[in-house]
Amino acid sequence: MSVAEQRETFEAIIDAQVLQQTIDTLQAVVQEAIFTLDEDGIRAAAVDPGNVAMTRVDLDAAAFESYWADGGRIGVNLTRLDDIVSKANADDIIHLELDEETRKLNIRFRNVDVSMALIDPDAIRKEPDLPNLDDKWHADLHVEAAMLSEAVDIADLISDHVRFRSVADEGVLHVEAQGDTDDSDVTVEGDDLLPGSEIGEDCNSLLSLGYFTDLFKPVPNDAEVRLRHGTEHPVLFEYEFADGHGFAEGFQAPRVEAR
Amino acid sequence: MSVAEQRETFEAIIDAQVLQQTIDTLQAVVQEAIFTLDEDGIRAAAVDPGNVAMTRVDLDAAAFESYWADGGRIGVNLTRLDDIVSKANADDIIHLELDEETRKLNIRFRNVDVSMALIDPDAIRKEPDLPNLDDKWHADLHVEAAMLSEAVDIADLISDHVRFRSVADEGVLHVEAQGDTDDSDVTVEGDDLLPGSEIGEDCNSLLSLGYFTDLFKPVPNDAEVRLRHGTEHPVLFEYEFADGHGFAEGFQAPRVEAR
Amino acid sequence: MSVAEQRETFEAIIDAQVLQQTIDTLQAVVQEAIFTLDEDGIRAAAVDPGNVAMTRVDLDAAAFESYWADGGRIGVNLTRLDDIVSKANADDIIHLELDEETRKLNIRFRNVDVSMALIDPDAIRKEPDLPNLDDKWHADLHVEAAMLSEAVDIADLISDHVRFRSVADEGVLHVEAQGDTDDSDVTVEGDDLLPGSEIGEDCNSLLSLGYFTDLFKPVPNDAEVRLRHGTEHPVLFEYEFADGHGFAEGFQAPRVEAR
Repeated sequence: MSVAEQRETFEAIIDAQVLQQTIDTLQAVVQEAIFTLDEDGIRAAAVDPGNVAMTRVDLDAAAFESYWADGGRIGVNLTRLDDIVSKANADDIIHLELDEETRKLNIRFRNVDVSMALIDPDAIRKEPDLPNLDDKWHADLHVEAAMLSEAVDIADLISDHVRFRSVADEGVLHVEAQGDTDDSDVTVEGDDLLPGSEIGEDCNSLLSLGYFTDLFKPVPNDAEVRLRHGTEHPVLFEYEFADGHGFAEGFQAPRVEAR
Repeated sequence: MSVAEQRETFEAIIDAQVLQQTIDTLQAVVQEAIFTLDEDGIRAAAVDPGNVAMTRVDLDAAAFESYWADGGRIGVNLTRLDDIVSKANADDIIHLELDEETRKLNIRFRNVDVSMALIDPDAIRKEPDLPNLDDKWHADLHVEAAMLSEAVDIADLISDHVRFRSVADEGVLHVEAQGDTDDSDVTVEGDDLLPGSEIGEDCNSLLSLGYFTDLFKPVPNDAEVRLRHGTEHPVLFEYEFADGHGFAEGFQAPRVEAR
Repeated sequence: MSVAEQRETFEAIIDAQVLQQTIDTLQAVVQEAIFTLDEDGIRAAAVDPGNVAMTRVDLDAAAFESYWADGGRIGVNLTRLDDIVSKANADDIIHLELDEETRKLNIRFRNVDVSMALIDPDAIRKEPDLPNLDDKWHADLHVEAAMLSEAVDIADLISDHVRFRSVADEGVLHVEAQGDTDDSDVTVEGDDLLPGSEIGEDCNSLLSLGYFTDLFKPVPNDAEVRLRHGTEHPVLFEYEFADGHGFAEGFQAPRVEAR
């Protein structure tokens, strides 16, 4: 087999807005990320240096106007890619192509043509595997992103931490904060808990707000977010974009509480 | 008489916008203020530490959707209250309630519930009594706030001080500034002096702009401002808000001029 | 001849927007400028202290609502004039008048009247004469300002320099940048090269972006810009404003390239 045949190839066409959402999601946590270019789409994940917050994006091949890849991995400087992609208009179509010889990513839209150096994927910190916590997440909540975002904004006025507290009996999520002198409680219940929501038993998770606001900032206001949590286990939220062909999730370890 | 019977009580419902206007007015001068909760409404006043600028707000009970109080006094951290109230939308209804036991103010709107610690009113600097200068204010001017605001903006380009100079003969208010090399003069006259305006004799007041711009900043652009001044006496301006049920005033000592 | 008869006079009425464009153009390069007040209009030019970038504005008498001058020169603090003129609304009419005795410029609009001290023109650095390079500029390109501005924005992501490279054969302008690892190429061709464009022979100019972005920033997005360049000679761009009665140009020396 010749060297040429071993080379990875990647060529895709995508809406600027979908690519931007992907970049924003990863940038919430890191500045460099590994993109895995599978036949059926792109996957990327990143964890912050403190191993507290993790984010993951999947873009199905169907999220692209056209997509072709044969399974390589590329290391991407997200800040640089963001600089370039943010110059495109929301309705621009972006053409991406991996130059196999130079290991550069070619980015084209309108009359713009940029060649961006890639990073050796082996030089980028790997994300740890996510534990499967399906049996620990007793609260499964579906909420409009804007509502969750506002709830967390209120907590941010009061404290550096936010508590998600789901009460099974009452079918309510409390987004709480406790400061030195002040307290806040934003309740999400009734029709604000969208269909599919289920609180199997009481759950209680305390999170550092610094990480959570970063992690949640890229979520589009009109996204339906599925938030799952338990008690003293990590919190997971996920949502779809790109007409359901894009999938993003955020995962944050809880703050351990003194007893 | 039991302790319980002596406790102060306060519960009120108010438009977010009206409460915000009240907070903004006081914040022009101080960060903490005493609210007096009378049966017929709320009163608050504040003077800056240098005793140069003073502001006062009265909110009649009719400015509220519902109001009940029995004459207490509460000390309020305005920055903190502003943080919370500014999260409400302009058309939100805010529910305020004094928790007599914890001495906290409960603030509720939509699905938000915040409990904010109050400050001991005795720990907050009292405002001095305002002298009655009705016989010193020979110029009584009614002007749209936006016009006065623009006039003062021009003065601010030229100098650290603004002079209000009312000329009785000509029926004109000059808003003047004199810099080291440049001068400005914005004239308010004719239809721009609204009905009720009267200049009994020439008046001339020099004010520090730093204080005046802070004091005037919260005035809504479309408010009709009544500005009264004399010569080397404090300047008073006042306006109504909340459909006439709210009343705000600013009062500033003049800069003494060398002769 | 009496002293009074020797005095320079100047009185003019102009749209705030046209005056603002004139100020912005000069401010791209300097903070003080000499305005020459000829019978047929105002001319001003300025060069940056490093002699790299130069700008020039001509305002025909026809650009004014009314104009009268007899050939004087005034030194203007652009920052100060900008502060004042930016307080006018875009559709305000500004009245300018030179006070011959005090050497101040009187600026009036609406009810505002400002008297601004002028600077001795002899205290302001003269601009050097522009060399005539008509026979060196082999590329004569007409492009919409917004397109050129976007092209330069992309270059700014990649490097501190931008290269204008016109290819005669292909009838294309490349706006290129070369960074340590990344490259960009924005092409302007076809209908984007507006009528009048002509590339006589290949041209290649490398410019410092810091200067060029400052110089180009005041150009209105919808202006048609005429850009002329050669190889290792200064680049000139020019455009009209004020319905063709205003004329602005920017001129920048190339960065000398190592061979």
